[in-house]
Amino acid sequence: MSLITLGTMAFDSIETPFGKIDKIVGGSATYVAYAASHLMKPVQQISIVGDDFPKEEMDELKKRGVQMEGVEIVKGKKSFFWSGKYHLDMNTRDTLVTDLNVLADFNPIVPSSYQGAEFLMLGNLMPSLQINVINQLQKRPKLIVLDTMNFWMDTALAELQKVITMIDVLLINDTEARQLSGEFSLVKAAKKVMEMGPKYLIIKKGEHGALLFHENHVFFAPALPLEDVFDPTGAGDTFAGGFMGHLARTRDLSFDNMKTAIIVGSAMASFCVEKFGPQRLKEISKEDIDIRLQEFVQLVNFDIDLV
Amino acid sequence: MSLITLGTMAFDSIETPFGKIDKIVGGSATYVAYAASHLMKPVQQISIVGDDFPKEEMDELKKRGVQMEGVEIVKGKKSFFWSGKYHLDMNTRDTLVTDLNVLADFNPIVPSSYQGAEFLMLGNLMPSLQINVINQLQKRPKLIVLDTMNFWMDTALAELQKVITMIDVLLINDTEARQLSGEFSLVKAAKKVMEMGPKYLIIKKGEHGALLFHENHVFFAPALPLEDVFDPTGAGDTFAGGFMGHLARTRDLSFDNMKTAIIVGSAMASFCVEKFGPQRLKEISKEDIDIRLQEFVQLVNFDIDLV
Repeated sequence: MSLITLGTMAFDSIETPFGKIDKIVGGSATYVAYAASHLMKPVQQISIVGDDFPKEEMDELKKRGVQMEGVEIVKGKKSFFWSGKYHLDMNTRDTLVTDLNVLADFNPIVPSSYQGAEFLMLGNLMPSLQINVINQLQKRPKLIVLDTMNFWMDTALAELQKVITMIDVLLINDTEARQLSGEFSLVKAAKKVMEMGPKYLIIKKGEHGALLFHENHVFFAPALPLEDVFDPTGAGDTFAGGFMGHLARTRDLSFDNMKTAIIVGSAMASFCVEKFGPQRLKEISKEDIDIRLQEFVQLVNFDIDLV
Repeated sequence: MSLITLGTMAFDSIETPFGKIDKIVGGSATYVAYAASHLMKPVQQISIVGDDFPKEEMDELKKRGVQMEGVEIVKGKKSFFWSGKYHLDMNTRDTLVTDLNVLADFNPIVPSSYQGAEFLMLGNLMPSLQINVINQLQKRPKLIVLDTMNFWMDTALAELQKVITMIDVLLINDTEARQLSGEFSLVKAAKKVMEMGPKYLIIKKGEHGALLFHENHVFFAPALPLEDVFDPTGAGDTFAGGFMGHLARTRDLSFDNMKTAIIVGSAMASFCVEKFGPQRLKEISKEDIDIRLQEFVQLVNFDIDLV
């Protein structure tokens, strides 16, 4: 039941209305790994870093069952760096700096020890690299989940359209669903996007929760109402890690279990936003996660009788 | 278990990205009455209209168990008229015309036959009139629910602050909760608003659902994802009517039953937006409502196990 994760491992500098922090560890694969490794092992990482990426962070991830054989360390070069500033609503942000660094020449290699993985999480990255990794797998995983963003719709649409024919679950936000489909109604957008390939579509709406579409079914998972969203960086990746981690742990791909997986993803994301970077994901215990899951039950559970 | 409803009965002209309609019946008390009367009887209306308000509409409401003794008909004058245009997101709109007409001199009188009502729904209206009606009741209702809007926060804040000390449940939208509290976080806003008086606060978020706050509890009800929101006019009033109608029908004021009432309100609102004006609320049957309620169960119901 191993899970391969492709994505960035990076440094972020983040400014929010609540504070500012310079050069902390981030990256889509980092968040996915921290979240998923609470739920199952091993997570098999595919990424690239410079020799500036902290050895302690690698060790911390290894300790949690994250395998690093697929992470290339490039001597004399710097890790990917992103810097952004969030607006007050925390749903929108400006990118201040994007230094690709090692990512510019990334040519992911799937280690032979990763072959046979049942689950593949393609974190937000160039679609060509996502296709590259799928093509290296000798046996198609049971479930391939793809995260992407509007940047690739603007700059690499043909490759993005190709990769979404190769996957099972697509993760995008509401703005991206509208852009990709040309439909304003999310229900109509979902139908059009599923016609492009994916059997399942998850539309993330930030503080407004997430929608899961499959055939004619729809499921809604709320975000937990929090006093403060301290730093949303990585929340989407953490959601993906929790979602994928739950499915890999239970190996049940029914629609009902996908619902549960989205709640688990939402719960993990609700921790992520409580502190800068992946810090909270390192602190929390299984008990913390269980308590949070019960809060989600309380949040949406209701009894109904007929009128 | 009668329910008194105070609010407007009016004409609306509405423009949406999907169409345009001139001078159809609307008003907060009209929508509340159509929604609530699907669930319980009698609804005891307090409102004011001109002699232009259609007799057939009055008769239709009466047929549904809505009592009209408290509705003043002013000869030779016109009913309240509102005209608005919705933006593409359907969550925001511009008011084009507001003709108060009979509403300018409205002095609501509670008929003696309404005395003893257990439930009072104060629809969106001048706070002084809402206070006036509460003060006329010889016995305080079991539950008083108040709907209001930012317009009264801007123009009649002192009276609004007074009336919210006299009620049990306050209904406002997210922007209004932020304005009233001065807090951006809805969780913090809810705490501050509840300190002003109401034991329960419902924050409506349009297509993003609604939150119910009470002490340290929070419940979230989604909006049903629809292919098209055709006309959102009256959706908030219909939500209030469904919420109040369910509580009046069941006479159970527990937090658990409030949760169910919010789902019923959301279901009624989901019909309202399917056509212009209150049309859909006239067409639907008990069976339609039950089917819709089951769709809400499917939409948010999930199983959880511990991790």
